[in-house]
Amino acid sequence: MSVDAPLDGPVRGLAPLDPAVERDARAALDAKTKPRRSLGTLEDLATRIASVRGSTRPAPLDPVVVVAAGDHGVAHEDVSAYPQEVTGQMLANFAGGGAAVAVLCRIAGARLVIVDAGVVSPPVVPGLRDLALGRGTANAAAGPAMERRIAVDGVARGAALGRELVDSGAGVVALGEMGIGNTTVAAAVTCALLGCDPAVACGRGTGLDQAGVARKVEVVGRMLAVNAPRADDPLGTLAAVGGFELAVLAGVALGAAGGRAVVLVDGYISSVSALVAARLAPALEGYLVASHRSPEPGHALVLEALRLDPLLDLGLRLGEGSGAALALPLLAAARAILVEMATFAEAGVSDTGR
Amino acid sequence: MSVDAPLDGPVRGLAPLDPAVERDARAALDAKTKPRRSLGTLEDLATRIASVRGSTRPAPLDPVVVVAAGDHGVAHEDVSAYPQEVTGQMLANFAGGGAAVAVLCRIAGARLVIVDAGVVSPPVVPGLRDLALGRGTANAAAGPAMERRIAVDGVARGAALGRELVDSGAGVVALGEMGIGNTTVAAAVTCALLGCDPAVACGRGTGLDQAGVARKVEVVGRMLAVNAPRADDPLGTLAAVGGFELAVLAGVALGAAGGRAVVLVDGYISSVSALVAARLAPALEGYLVASHRSPEPGHALVLEALRLDPLLDLGLRLGEGSGAALALPLLAAARAILVEMATFAEAGVSDTGR
Repeated sequence: MSVDAPLDGPVRGLAPLDPAVERDARAALDAKTKPRRSLGTLEDLATRIASVRGSTRPAPLDPVVVVAAGDHGVAHEDVSAYPQEVTGQMLANFAGGGAAVAVLCRIAGARLVIVDAGVVSPPVVPGLRDLALGRGTANAAAGPAMERRIAVDGVARGAALGRELVDSGAGVVALGEMGIGNTTVAAAVTCALLGCDPAVACGRGTGLDQAGVARKVEVVGRMLAVNAPRADDPLGTLAAVGGFELAVLAGVALGAAGGRAVVLVDGYISSVSALVAARLAPALEGYLVASHRSPEPGHALVLEALRLDPLLDLGLRLGEGSGAALALPLLAAARAILVEMATFAEAGVSDTGR
Repeated sequence: MSVDAPLDGPVRGLAPLDPAVERDARAALDAKTKPRRSLGTLEDLATRIASVRGSTRPAPLDPVVVVAAGDHGVAHEDVSAYPQEVTGQMLANFAGGGAAVAVLCRIAGARLVIVDAGVVSPPVVPGLRDLALGRGTANAAAGPAMERRIAVDGVARGAALGRELVDSGAGVVALGEMGIGNTTVAAAVTCALLGCDPAVACGRGTGLDQAGVARKVEVVGRMLAVNAPRADDPLGTLAAVGGFELAVLAGVALGAAGGRAVVLVDGYISSVSALVAARLAPALEGYLVASHRSPEPGHALVLEALRLDPLLDLGLRLGEGSGAALALPLLAAARAILVEMATFAEAGVSDTGR
């Protein structure tokens, strides 16, 4: 059995979407009391939700935001404005309800699932899901971040969680993350999978100055030179220059989509997870919705590769799933337009527009 | 007593915002467990809400969406894809809960207030607020749409409604509208107040083809030539080439802001109402939030004149307040970030970022 075999189920289980449902959803929207296409992107979103859920009258989405946290050996290369202990401290803040994503989940009526994917010092807090693959990755600027079998295990654990969330009722699963240093890791994966230059993919992250960005470009260059990840091997890339939370989130995306839930991507890091997952199972693209466009330059490259047009553009660069939580009410609205709006015939409104 | 005298109260009652509250809100946001400014536009929005509400810990916003409907004599110039009777039919659809704005208000937890500002055939439906200024305006391509005293009366009635909504608990009042032909009317007001050419301000509205847009440009040109509205006389412009729902909404904006509620603008027509109101009371600008950028070309001109940067850009061209209702959860989120997020000190998270 190959080391990648645990992923055969999640990867092969992903069915392409049925174009008939998309067509029926468009027709249903055209019959509603509004000029055709006048709700713009909201109509595209409603159509995608219908396609993924396999129904032109999908049930309420019962959203879940998964925040997976991991630590990174590469954080010791001075690539973040924050020390590594913040990853674990923030896990406690998620559980305590004071972090941005916790506040935004309350506003959106979303469940928040907090996952230890492998932080150095995980806090003891109620409700923390332990999927830890280790206590932080190795420094990928000096060798592989993790063994391939660990990356595979992370994706498999994430896929099981994603499927479990769908089985518990979720119609949309949002991907959030926490991990000091993980924009550096995301940039390395971006460069490896998309074949771009570190200087193009690296940005300020959550608060670097210009010198910090230059250091980050140098570190990403070393990560790529030392590990030589291959664009046609997403799992090998994940193991070489990725991170524990990226592995788990790639799996969550596959598992949630396998259960026919919409996968809502947050910012740069979660988009990179989705890219890894989509390179494993190309049909995933149809299940993805991008919540927002972050200022991180690599994010635009990944969104383009995934052919995603984000719903929001609010200059968010926090991560945590905060942008995804902010976008959730738009998904609820799109579903409601499709299911709850009256047709011209039902409302007795003259329909002459085109 | 001048014919404009009924507006002395609403116009003079508008206090400029206190910069100390804005400063305190920024400082409060900087202490929260996130890199500084990492929530981008959401932080600007939270600051504006705090400034308008006069508190760095504003109460929940209890949003109200006001949809004012009016008919337009100029609709007989063949400037819309829909016949005039649709205005009244849609009022019934708002009240029945099947219209987009009704669905979206349910998603946002907002009250929907439906106003007859002067439609030709108002339906008999429960809860319709009768502020009617007539049964449709006169054809502004042949003479003034209404007398100046009627425009003044409309603004005064709207201001009383806006104030009433704040007194009943609303912290944000959103402006929505319905009126077949009203993008033509909005374009004429835009051209009069901003001194631009009809060809620059006119777009497809809710569904015109290219020939329809050309006809609209010609009609707006005639409206301006026949009435010669003056840029320095917003009330005269409103009377000459405006509409009943525009007058009422301009008043709602003044009344709501006078009561220290945020005024949430929807698309092109409601932005033009806000522009008229801001020309009467320049301090209004500080109370405004733009929900979305519509594809209607005049909208960009008006947003720029009001120095507003919209939250959403989803290609919406429906009106009704639908874009404002869609943006309401972002306002709730911004308030919650300010009030509910933990500080670094409260959460015991290391704060080293800048």
